[in-house]
Amino acid sequence: MMEIDIPEVKAELEAAFAAYETALTTNDVDVLDALFLDAPTTIRYGGGENLYGYQEIAAFRAGRSPAGLMRALERTVITTYGRDFGVASTLFRRDSAAGKIGRQMQTWLRTDAGWRVVAAHVSIIADPDSGGGGR
Amino acid sequence: MMEIDIPEVKAELEAAFAAYETALTTNDVDVLDALFLDAPTTIRYGGGENLYGYQEIAAFRAGRSPAGLMRALERTVITTYGRDFGVASTLFRRDSAAGKIGRQMQTWLRTDAGWRVVAAHVSIIADPDSGGGGR
Repeated sequence: MMEIDIPEVKAELEAAFAAYETALTTNDVDVLDALFLDAPTTIRYGGGENLYGYQEIAAFRAGRSPAGLMRALERTVITTYGRDFGVASTLFRRDSAAGKIGRQMQTWLRTDAGWRVVAAHVSIIADPDSGGGGR
Repeated sequence: MMEIDIPEVKAELEAAFAAYETALTTNDVDVLDALFLDAPTTIRYGGGENLYGYQEIAAFRAGRSPAGLMRALERTVITTYGRDFGVASTLFRRDSAAGKIGRQMQTWLRTDAGWRVVAAHVSIIADPDSGGGGR
């Protein structure tokens, strides 16, 4: 099986993840677009939308309100498998959404141009640790 | 960059995905457990819970109600990257949840013992195509 968390590979993906987070919270659409793989197979399930293919994702970014994107991350785990693949998972909270917790999971692939997200899923639920959980 | 959707690799992952779906809808906990990578790095964000590590995932499966798990899949996309990695994304609906749509995204890794899920995220939102969307 592929080696998990080769230190230098993990460090690369941590840097890519950090760049994404900065771009997200500053609504830097050019960087956000650049960090997703430009392919019809790239999928992003967002907080309230299901986007299939790079074009749908880019259109969503371009139309998104830049307000209220700042957030605090919790329990971030970045794991690499071999040298070319990894997953970044994190919880997040926003001041505007008390009692809720967000979850973001991204699958990253190394390309000739750098690391790119090939699949992402963002959702927001009642915080199970605050007694408001669901199933 | 890794080759996308090598036919025989994609066929393998499609078979693994189908085995998972059968196990899920019949609540075959042994198979569900077997299909997740037994590692502390495996993460599953579920409909209402955030599970870090194989042990938390297995405990959740063991305690889950087997009722009402049947579902219909839509827009399933399985994409492989190289020979050892892939992502399976699907929407799903349950009769018990009118106006809602589920999203399931799994990242799969080939191991010596077969394909295993290393990260999964399931969420349920108002169906954006039925006018009930949000973000």
